Amino acid sequence: MLSLAVMGSGKGSNFQSILDAIREGRLEARVACVLSDVADAFILERARGAGVPAIHVDGAPFKTKLEGVAEDRVLRILRDHGADSIALAGFMRIVKPKLIGAFRHRMVNIHPSLLPAFPGLHAWKQALEYGARVAGCTVHFVDEGTDTGPIIVQRPVGVLDTDTPETLHARIQEQEHLAYPEALQLLSAGRLRVEGRRVVRV
Amino acid sequence: MLSLAVMGSGKGSNFQSILDAIREGRLEARVACVLSDVADAFILERARGAGVPAIHVDGAPFKTKLEGVAEDRVLRILRDHGADSIALAGFMRIVKPKLIGAFRHRMVNIHPSLLPAFPGLHAWKQALEYGARVAGCTVHFVDEGTDTGPIIVQRPVGVLDTDTPETLHARIQEQEHLAYPEALQLLSAGRLRVEGRRVVRV
Repeated sequence: MLSLAVMGSGKGSNFQSILDAIREGRLEARVACVLSDVADAFILERARGAGVPAIHVDGAPFKTKLEGVAEDRVLRILRDHGADSIALAGFMRIVKPKLIGAFRHRMVNIHPSLLPAFPGLHAWKQALEYGARVAGCTVHFVDEGTDTGPIIVQRPVGVLDTDTPETLHARIQEQEHLAYPEALQLLSAGRLRVEGRRVVRV
Repeated sequence: MLSLAVMGSGKGSNFQSILDAIREGRLEARVACVLSDVADAFILERARGAGVPAIHVDGAPFKTKLEGVAEDRVLRILRDHGADSIALAGFMRIVKPKLIGAFRHRMVNIHPSLLPAFPGLHAWKQALEYGARVAGCTVHFVDEGTDTGPIIVQRPVGVLDTDTPETLHARIQEQEHLAYPEALQLLSAGRLRVEGRRVVRV
């Protein structure tokens, strides 16, 4: 059973899919705490509504990364709440080696493309502009690169001629909400073994 | 109705899928000729068996590209046989701007990955080594880059824990044999409009 910290900066729809999966018995986990670098992010509201500790962590003096005193504070909060793994769910800061190393193969992220295609921001928009006919989402372990960690689950999403960035993003998010609980349950059940870049299911 | 030249260097399984689709009425095209840079390639044998002109073009003095006298010879053969479009089917030489320009948006290629992921050789092996969970194939127009042209059709293929390069390649090829006739029929029916990088169906 995972003791999961969820970290996000926005509305937390992937966090909601995790809560739903736990409630429906598809994911054996408890959410130890939810952390956000944005004081009024809806993900914190959602956590409070679900009776989960909801903690704002000030990222200052940095704007785009989690490092220094803020990183140390996060590590302390995770320890205090007994979190043994981390799910990034729309967390908009770059996590740094200290946190990554402390949660090696215990920290996962979700990305709205079939990596290694379209890393970085607004991946669904990149896919559309590239003219891809198959988009998708990827759940992966977090390593020191940007969207480069070992892949746990991917789900494809067909691109329609009529797609706008918004409609494609919405269909990718539907698949994210299936992929994330699925990947976390594999982690929870101890079924993932990382061999180099490959994640093998045991 | 397409008048199609097929160019290949190997066994020509994608050429076979094109022949099958024509015979079954899924693809409105005639194969004007089959060209190979390899004198004893099975694709030429297959063409002769199907009653299609089968022509070996010596690529000398080059080993990895089609340029110079060989390129000119190909252009002449295509004209003599009334070919208005080209399907590359395992053609192992790099085609150059003269041929590309003469068949702009009339020359297509098939690649065993979901581009832009895994361009280049042995894409199925690259996908497996990267740890991708979704592989696939791409039919695209040929431009001056390597596997960079506008995408017509993509089909995803799930990667299995038990996959070897051979088993994954085999399942990707199954999808290639569906994707290639599908893309060619869209071209044949005049349903493809290229807008920048995007191929829109009209």
